[in-house]
Amino acid sequence: MYDENNVFAKIIRGELPSKKIYENEYAMSFHNINPVAEIHALIIPKGPYKNIHDFLFNAPTEAIAGFWDAYRETANILGLSGDYNIAANTGSGPFFTQSIMHFHLHLLGGKRLKDEIEL
Amino acid sequence: MYDENNVFAKIIRGELPSKKIYENEYAMSFHNINPVAEIHALIIPKGPYKNIHDFLFNAPTEAIAGFWDAYRETANILGLSGDYNIAANTGSGPFFTQSIMHFHLHLLGGKRLKDEIEL
Repeated sequence: MYDENNVFAKIIRGELPSKKIYENEYAMSFHNINPVAEIHALIIPKGPYKNIHDFLFNAPTEAIAGFWDAYRETANILGLSGDYNIAANTGSGPFFTQSIMHFHLHLLGGKRLKDEIEL
Repeated sequence: MYDENNVFAKIIRGELPSKKIYENEYAMSFHNINPVAEIHALIIPKGPYKNIHDFLFNAPTEAIAGFWDAYRETANILGLSGDYNIAANTGSGPFFTQSIMHFHLHLLGGKRLKDEIEL
């Protein structure tokens, strides 16, 4: 079910570059290459989880803790302590559709760069 | 900083009714009274955290684990395993503004009921 050749899997393996913000044993974060806001970070687990549902149901406790550690570190590095949005999608939801089938949490801050939110 | 009289604090204390989905020691979930999608659940911690940032930075490990347990149980009860959106806001983000100052995670599935996402 998980496609090992998705863009984020390639970033994790170092086969594609990224504007990295933070990395630990279980997770990493980087700037979105197509930001919709001044701050548009993506936080991803390093394990092969296709969406947040797969991740929260199937990842080991330490991987989930490591992911939220990466969230906290990323927010600190970006200077975000309030006035931001987070979002994540699984497949085609009522408002947003997941584009890359590796779990990624959107962290959106600062001014809006596009009128439409495209996640 | 945390307002003990916000609507969700009153729901937790049983002073206001809710269409409850699930509850454990640390968290609970219920149907949004103004849904923007066929399935529009809110998952909240029982502790006094004003937004997801406050919660993930300041809540004890067991409260965070209990929150994600409630997430899993809620998704199971609602029959959601994919094709859904999650979102959370702190203050005024680039796209969405938090309306009630108690951390709540939106879980959105099924068909859209409103064109505008109002979280």
